[in-house]
Amino acid sequence: MEKKISHVLIANRGVPAVRVMDTCRDRRIKTTAIYSTADRLAYHVRLADQAVCVGEAPPLESYLNMENIIKAALEVGADAIHPGWGFLAENADFAEMVQEAGLIWIGPSPEVIRAMGDKVEAKKYARRANVPTIPGIDNVTSLEDIKKWLEEEKVDFPIMLKAAKGGGGKGMVKVESEEELPIAFNQAKSEAMKAFGDDTLLAEKYIRKGRHIEVQVLADIHGKVVHLYERECTLQRRNQKIIEEAPSPTLDEDLREEICFTAVRLMREIGYTSAGTVEFIFDASTNKFYFLEVNTRLQVEHGITELITGLDIVGLMLDIAEGKKLPVRQSEIKVNRWALEARLNAEDPVTFNPSFGTITRLQLPQGPAVRISQGVYEGADIPPYYDSLIMLIMTAGQNREAAIMTMDRALGRDLRVEGIKTIAPLLLAIIRHPSFRAGHFSTTFIEEHMDELVSMFKEKSSEDEVLKIAKFVARVSALGPQPWM
Amino acid sequence: MEKKISHVLIANRGVPAVRVMDTCRDRRIKTTAIYSTADRLAYHVRLADQAVCVGEAPPLESYLNMENIIKAALEVGADAIHPGWGFLAENADFAEMVQEAGLIWIGPSPEVIRAMGDKVEAKKYARRANVPTIPGIDNVTSLEDIKKWLEEEKVDFPIMLKAAKGGGGKGMVKVESEEELPIAFNQAKSEAMKAFGDDTLLAEKYIRKGRHIEVQVLADIHGKVVHLYERECTLQRRNQKIIEEAPSPTLDEDLREEICFTAVRLMREIGYTSAGTVEFIFDASTNKFYFLEVNTRLQVEHGITELITGLDIVGLMLDIAEGKKLPVRQSEIKVNRWALEARLNAEDPVTFNPSFGTITRLQLPQGPAVRISQGVYEGADIPPYYDSLIMLIMTAGQNREAAIMTMDRALGRDLRVEGIKTIAPLLLAIIRHPSFRAGHFSTTFIEEHMDELVSMFKEKSSEDEVLKIAKFVARVSALGPQPWM
Repeated sequence: MEKKISHVLIANRGVPAVRVMDTCRDRRIKTTAIYSTADRLAYHVRLADQAVCVGEAPPLESYLNMENIIKAALEVGADAIHPGWGFLAENADFAEMVQEAGLIWIGPSPEVIRAMGDKVEAKKYARRANVPTIPGIDNVTSLEDIKKWLEEEKVDFPIMLKAAKGGGGKGMVKVESEEELPIAFNQAKSEAMKAFGDDTLLAEKYIRKGRHIEVQVLADIHGKVVHLYERECTLQRRNQKIIEEAPSPTLDEDLREEICFTAVRLMREIGYTSAGTVEFIFDASTNKFYFLEVNTRLQVEHGITELITGLDIVGLMLDIAEGKKLPVRQSEIKVNRWALEARLNAEDPVTFNPSFGTITRLQLPQGPAVRISQGVYEGADIPPYYDSLIMLIMTAGQNREAAIMTMDRALGRDLRVEGIKTIAPLLLAIIRHPSFRAGHFSTTFIEEHMDELVSMFKEKSSEDEVLKIAKFVARVSALGPQPWM
Repeated sequence: MEKKISHVLIANRGVPAVRVMDTCRDRRIKTTAIYSTADRLAYHVRLADQAVCVGEAPPLESYLNMENIIKAALEVGADAIHPGWGFLAENADFAEMVQEAGLIWIGPSPEVIRAMGDKVEAKKYARRANVPTIPGIDNVTSLEDIKKWLEEEKVDFPIMLKAAKGGGGKGMVKVESEEELPIAFNQAKSEAMKAFGDDTLLAEKYIRKGRHIEVQVLADIHGKVVHLYERECTLQRRNQKIIEEAPSPTLDEDLREEICFTAVRLMREIGYTSAGTVEFIFDASTNKFYFLEVNTRLQVEHGITELITGLDIVGLMLDIAEGKKLPVRQSEIKVNRWALEARLNAEDPVTFNPSFGTITRLQLPQGPAVRISQGVYEGADIPPYYDSLIMLIMTAGQNREAAIMTMDRALGRDLRVEGIKTIAPLLLAIIRHPSFRAGHFSTTFIEEHMDELVSMFKEKSSEDEVLKIAKFVARVSALGPQPWM
């Protein structure tokens, strides 16, 4: 039953490709990178044992070019494919093609990916497993469906309309009042059709001041399912996470146990295998959580779970894909620190416009309790075709305060990126904000505090200049002029 | 009773100075660095809030210049001094001068430093606390003392002669036979006099195939003493550790508990405060351990204990120095990973001759489970006056094998140092050696296997060349010529 993986093709680029390669290197598994013509000199290409060009720069021609990628894997003699995150990671057709080509797919089964990709289907599993779901209706095709639901269930605005086949924040429209409903309905339908080729919607109550909490799960093919505790991913802008932490500062021990074992119960019901994440929205005003979706892949923020548990999630995905039993028991999974992640995007910190060009200087944070996952190097080019994530900066500490202070050191003292813009100043302002420090924030935090955050880092820059001068003066004056000076 | 520390002068340079500064930065404590004229542009000077030149390059004129250092601390308005490790860290006179100047000494009391600096005195404490000591005699002043002991106790050669006031491997002479004894005795006496100004010796049985195991202890001024488990530091060359790990691969759970609580018992007997380490020699053939010495300071290898426990030892030293109660209970100190440290010395990996000059390129290992503590930067000069440690490379993993493989990635794939020589090739050869992998080694391992280790890394270099060519060929040939190439 067990099949040894000895050569992995990594169907990705940048941070996720480098991350997967690190564990493969640790396990003496050969790696083949793929790259587009824009990525000939990319970091993931430099680190791989070998690399194959799979197409032109636009993603559809290269990193989403399923046939070329599988052809490359077969020609180099790889025995498995790891999709990383993004691109083809949650594409059930691709997973199927990989398996049909006789290769090992390092991820959950295509059937599970397909079922969880359908929000309505996923909700059905959740209900079967007695997992709370947000009150709402599935399979909305007309405005009347929604109105009937609002009336029958006495639901108050705001509500959310979502693409039934959607995910990742796309095709979601918040509706504040009944007047807005008709326009919002048409907008959601057309966005859903454009993004997912299907305009079926679902309507749900909107959870005010909701917090985004997700549980990392691992499941092997022998029926063993364990959780690796939760992550809090509430800090988002435009529905994209930018700061995550583990554990969540808002859960007490009872809620933590309940949410974690709820996730395990759901994954059992689904028949899940590999690493996966169950996302919940948590209503801090009622202490209730509701199922959102299952991410059928490795997540960007998996590293903070590795920091608090000491486990290697990519390594465990390899074990599971090889047919091994999970080498850890639930009772052995111990948490002994707090961890934080900041996503360093190459974007303007105010406008969020992507920033392209050459990184002319790159100084990485180091020292105690810092982990860096970089996708670039000094001298590398940031091409305009792909997502803007260039590096994950993670810190850990005995408690939340310690992890935050180490993040402050990493972002505020050590990190230097020149040649392109990054959102580092915004990340630093967020972790210095009193509400973040107190653990009080919801998914709308960044939106609501954007002006304040921007003024924090604009003030900060001028203050830094003053400090620099003060430092110089102190250096030359202390002890006065001395014989050896 | 509690006194807040808000400004620390760090009486050190390089790796230890940077390490202490990192935690001070995390706690918003102002830092003043000291430097010699050779270190004007050193990394620790660049990172500090301010820096003061305390003398010319030779250590006695700067980093050991107690009066200038205390004067500097007073003039910049520091309220505490952290000595790092090395230099003045175990100098009781300096600790006393610091306190007499009204400054907080971040370390154990001068009395404890003085008592533990005297090997005979330290052994007395050990006996009082029922801690096993190596069979031997104290206060050896004549050859007759030794001969009498050998006869009465029926001790077999080899034996060890040590300077009573010594430490750190200096003034130690191994005696293989009775014929060697007179010459060895004179040699040990003269070394002891030269290094410590006192030629009193002690004689001990030599533990064959001994393993060096030490326990990290923390004790506050309120009588609370906890251990942070053990480290194995058996891999040494010329009595200097170069690879350490935590926990020890040779202890079972019963022995681990016994050795850790023995260390706690001893530290209680001593009335120890601050961070300290109890060193033992472990005889794997009998499963017995014997007290060696107490290191009354932060140790180079403290970081691997931080990696396995999630605690910040420098931070806890600050807490203790401020008069706080230790914020962790023994039962809360949980270990959830294995950690390894490699000391990157700027030395020729075969001759161990120090290497000086400018670091023209420095590429740091990164990624999951890697921690770097650097004392230098790209472009920095290595002056000839100080010890050769330029960086600590630490890795962690779910188990020993995982930590070793990640160290292999860090040393073998990622680290690049150009412009100076380092012992990286030797470190890599050691962690790849079958005996190390199996956990079978003693303090004489490197000495005994040096030829083998050197041939391992010499072969490796030529193999790497072959791989490089193979990689290039794979990259251009896979998929054959394609339209976008």
